[in-house]
Amino acid sequence: MSHGLFITLEGSEGSGKSTQIAYIKSYLESKGRKVICVREPGGTPIAEDIRKILKTPRSDDNLCDTAELLLMYAARAQLVNTLIKPNLEKGIDVICDRHDLSTIAYQGGGRGMNMDDINACRKVVLGDFRPNLTILIDIDPVVGMNRAQKRGALDRFEQSKMDFFVRVRNTYLEYAKEHPNEVKVVSGEQALEKVSSDIKILLDELHV
Amino acid sequence: MSHGLFITLEGSEGSGKSTQIAYIKSYLESKGRKVICVREPGGTPIAEDIRKILKTPRSDDNLCDTAELLLMYAARAQLVNTLIKPNLEKGIDVICDRHDLSTIAYQGGGRGMNMDDINACRKVVLGDFRPNLTILIDIDPVVGMNRAQKRGALDRFEQSKMDFFVRVRNTYLEYAKEHPNEVKVVSGEQALEKVSSDIKILLDELHV
Repeated sequence: MSHGLFITLEGSEGSGKSTQIAYIKSYLESKGRKVICVREPGGTPIAEDIRKILKTPRSDDNLCDTAELLLMYAARAQLVNTLIKPNLEKGIDVICDRHDLSTIAYQGGGRGMNMDDINACRKVVLGDFRPNLTILIDIDPVVGMNRAQKRGALDRFEQSKMDFFVRVRNTYLEYAKEHPNEVKVVSGEQALEKVSSDIKILLDELHV
Repeated sequence: MSHGLFITLEGSEGSGKSTQIAYIKSYLESKGRKVICVREPGGTPIAEDIRKILKTPRSDDNLCDTAELLLMYAARAQLVNTLIKPNLEKGIDVICDRHDLSTIAYQGGGRGMNMDDINACRKVVLGDFRPNLTILIDIDPVVGMNRAQKRGALDRFEQSKMDFFVRVRNTYLEYAKEHPNEVKVVSGEQALEKVSSDIKILLDELHV
């Protein structure tokens, strides 16, 4: 039995990840593959509890940057070890809404945390484990935030300022440029169908 | 204004840490010092939420070792950065019920996690920050568990097997032997008053 594919979707708020995850799932299933979809941070009961701590704005305590980083990696460890790896080993594809590159973009680029610290946590939690394909849906932060605001209340991350999202986008694009085999960039400012057809080409390159 | 003292208490379940923390607080206050007491994991609202995830036995998800390690350090980062360091800088002493040495003893010695991983997290979260004094109240695990059982229900850690606690104790003692200036060992199998008088000698050596 062959190993499942691990595919991660990255992009700023409002980039259209959810829509494209649904497309990828249905395309892979149309090829007879078994697929599950998860999100980060979260995806298991414990990791979802960690997500609540990360996402809930609160007045009684102010989450420090280092705790935020460690919580992100705690949730990732739980998801990868208890759900992603066991499913891949059973031959099931796993599509993940955000993964490690989000930490590099948001905590590293956005919040300016020390990249040595991020890499140290990455090594502890992931070792050499990497997705088969990371799709970065790139979008101008102004376009993305307008879309996200239409969806409803903004969470703790989304309340951050626009210059934060510009740094996130730049870090995403820099990482993709430095790791062209690992991360593929698709423009999220195109019509949804065109975004999907760009993604289809990337999936076909994996010989699904 | 002088910097506060950071004093941490370590020891297995039932070693009598709580009693001795109350003694240390009253002794330091009798010298005119301001003192606060905190515990790990926990001590701030967010860190207490992380403690709940670490301590609650649950049937729907099984916390993996790496996530446990990262959660411990997330709680520690939050406590150290938002409460311990700011108070020490104001000249207030901080007594902490468990700190970094517990991770070395429980996750490293007890669960056998990779010490390189623990040291990597330690460096990210603590850098060179260390207590002024760590008091290890040493006790035979059989004696400690009997005391802990009398106190009430055992939590997720306390439900572990006795050989786990033997490894924890051995790791504590090995670390203390290798770091004699950092960690002072006091026998917890003596009368409470004798434990306190041993601790008084250690506090007097700090010229409080």
